Amino acid sequence: MQIGILNEPSDLRVALVPDVIKQLIDRKNNVLVESNAGVQSSISNDDFQASGAEIKDRDSILQNLDLLISVTPPAAEVYAKLKPHALVISSFEPFNKPEVAQQLASTGVTALSLDMIPRITLAQSMDVLSSMASIAGYKAVIVAANHLPRYFPMLTTAAGTIPPAKVLVLGAGVAGLQAIATAKRIGGVVEAFDTRLAAKEEVESLGAKFVMVEGATDDKDAGGYAVEQTDEYKQKQQALIQAKAEKADVIITTAQLRGRPAPVLLTAETVQKMKSGAVIVDLASSTGGNCALTQDNETLDVDGVTIIGNSNLAEKVPMHASQLFSKNIFNYLKVFVSEEGELNLDLENEILKSSCISHDGAARYGN
Amino acid sequence: MQIGILNEPSDLRVALVPDVIKQLIDRKNNVLVESNAGVQSSISNDDFQASGAEIKDRDSILQNLDLLISVTPPAAEVYAKLKPHALVISSFEPFNKPEVAQQLASTGVTALSLDMIPRITLAQSMDVLSSMASIAGYKAVIVAANHLPRYFPMLTTAAGTIPPAKVLVLGAGVAGLQAIATAKRIGGVVEAFDTRLAAKEEVESLGAKFVMVEGATDDKDAGGYAVEQTDEYKQKQQALIQAKAEKADVIITTAQLRGRPAPVLLTAETVQKMKSGAVIVDLASSTGGNCALTQDNETLDVDGVTIIGNSNLAEKVPMHASQLFSKNIFNYLKVFVSEEGELNLDLENEILKSSCISHDGAARYGN
Repeated sequence: MQIGILNEPSDLRVALVPDVIKQLIDRKNNVLVESNAGVQSSISNDDFQASGAEIKDRDSILQNLDLLISVTPPAAEVYAKLKPHALVISSFEPFNKPEVAQQLASTGVTALSLDMIPRITLAQSMDVLSSMASIAGYKAVIVAANHLPRYFPMLTTAAGTIPPAKVLVLGAGVAGLQAIATAKRIGGVVEAFDTRLAAKEEVESLGAKFVMVEGATDDKDAGGYAVEQTDEYKQKQQALIQAKAEKADVIITTAQLRGRPAPVLLTAETVQKMKSGAVIVDLASSTGGNCALTQDNETLDVDGVTIIGNSNLAEKVPMHASQLFSKNIFNYLKVFVSEEGELNLDLENEILKSSCISHDGAARYGN
Repeated sequence: MQIGILNEPSDLRVALVPDVIKQLIDRKNNVLVESNAGVQSSISNDDFQASGAEIKDRDSILQNLDLLISVTPPAAEVYAKLKPHALVISSFEPFNKPEVAQQLASTGVTALSLDMIPRITLAQSMDVLSSMASIAGYKAVIVAANHLPRYFPMLTTAAGTIPPAKVLVLGAGVAGLQAIATAKRIGGVVEAFDTRLAAKEEVESLGAKFVMVEGATDDKDAGGYAVEQTDEYKQKQQALIQAKAEKADVIITTAQLRGRPAPVLLTAETVQKMKSGAVIVDLASSTGGNCALTQDNETLDVDGVTIIGNSNLAEKVPMHASQLFSKNIFNYLKVFVSEEGELNLDLENEILKSSCISHDGAARYGN
């Protein structure tokens, strides 16, 4: 197969790294790379060529490839240049963009959406959402520490003692757990909140205190995603979170509901009661944010409280985000590209059934 | 005594924090604070007033005070407004600016330079250089982690393992030791270099590997500062540092020579051999830098290597830098201001003898 990747200036990551390209070439594929595709991830054209990839111009890549892999969904003009029936792999977010499967179908491509890979054990090594969430959780704490006007760990000096930073993590999924682990590492005192009782043990195993409100709606059939809660529950939750937020130096929020706006966990009133100098990093900003005042991709100062809205912090660790992304891709490709580099797209396969959202001109999602 | 502090827009810190102001007022002093002096350190005018300070306009503070405390040396026009024989405390750096004592003497003020307090056990609790260096060492690692395109700790995921960042710390004084401790906390693998064998035990006690070249010039009479080395030693040192630097993801440099340009430990050639994506934070930039390519107060990208020149990173942790600074000041004031708020300036006192650089119209340094 001819596999192509492009230079994506709007994202610091690159879809394939040299180590993975080597493995793809061992499996009888060719890999075409647009010039400077890796620069922002600290990977040079020479690095790509050393791995066996060919550096080509954008149009010749698009015209020749059988499979395009893209971190961000390609722009509309890309599809017009592709061969009929080319495959395109990206994260299309059909659950947030109901029209996207139909749009892709109209271009004729077979679209494989990484964010639709089922979260089953068999597909764990292909789970781009999890690997990016993990990096985002880490980076959220680093960004918070960098913005914070205070020291993070306890510090004992001849001039007195500084207490450790108080950190509150809202949502203890993959991103939240990594945020907890990182905040603990740097020396913070961490509390974490989640509606899922299943999170308790994981939070406590990282040395953080688990905070929850009794009476949450059962989520065991939600495929690992959080579910919407009752109004009474939300009120109790609000009061508890506000009490914790008032004392916090750092709050990392990670609560997302798939295909719905993120729940507001920090109201404007709560922010007003927070300490001057506190920092909120809202990883749910792309779907509205967990803080009522968050603006996506903006850093705000609200009466001394910094609110950073960024749902794509994994991108800010481009070298390793690219590495994990492309390893996920490699594991995913094994499902439908043979060791001889031949395509075998079995849409009855559990993983492809969910993740293929357009094929042969027909949308396969949202109909 | 009437003690005054100003709003210093060029520095994020403030010279006195409310906790320390309370203690000064208990000791029969008045404290006058310029409006918004604490804003950048997350301290409001209300916070200052609650501690007993009076918020005043700049000119009335300058005309009434007996003692001005300033994080950065005041501008020339400030002295003209002071009462004759007023005291001014700041960090004047007479060892870098030989003319400053004479200039201060000509204004008539008694100038007390915090960076001239002797580094003796008795004065440890007044040591502003050490408390600021400690915060700078911490912040250097946080800044590096934030700029780094890679993950800092080891990460094991379903998509593979990421090795920990390799960190090299040059100079294991107060800043270097805090950088080592912070880099270890975040999960890096740390090596540290110093010419002083005395640093070995401290470096190793923090879990880092100590790297040194045999045959360094003895520094035991240098009052805790590093000394200049022979040419032969410097060549061996250069080769060793280059070998370590080529493998490093992060380099924190902290080597300063008091009153002389900082030693160049990383040449342009060394930077060229470093990995793309590596980050250098040069804390010695104000005296020329430990990296030949450093520019003070600039962040450069040299073929994928980021070089951050900043000798004042303590300022970027303003809340706690202000707290430690003002606690140091309080301990220093106890030497010459009685519990009844009366001045008793004994210039034969070991601490004042060194740190008073201008008195009664006469320079007391560099003559």
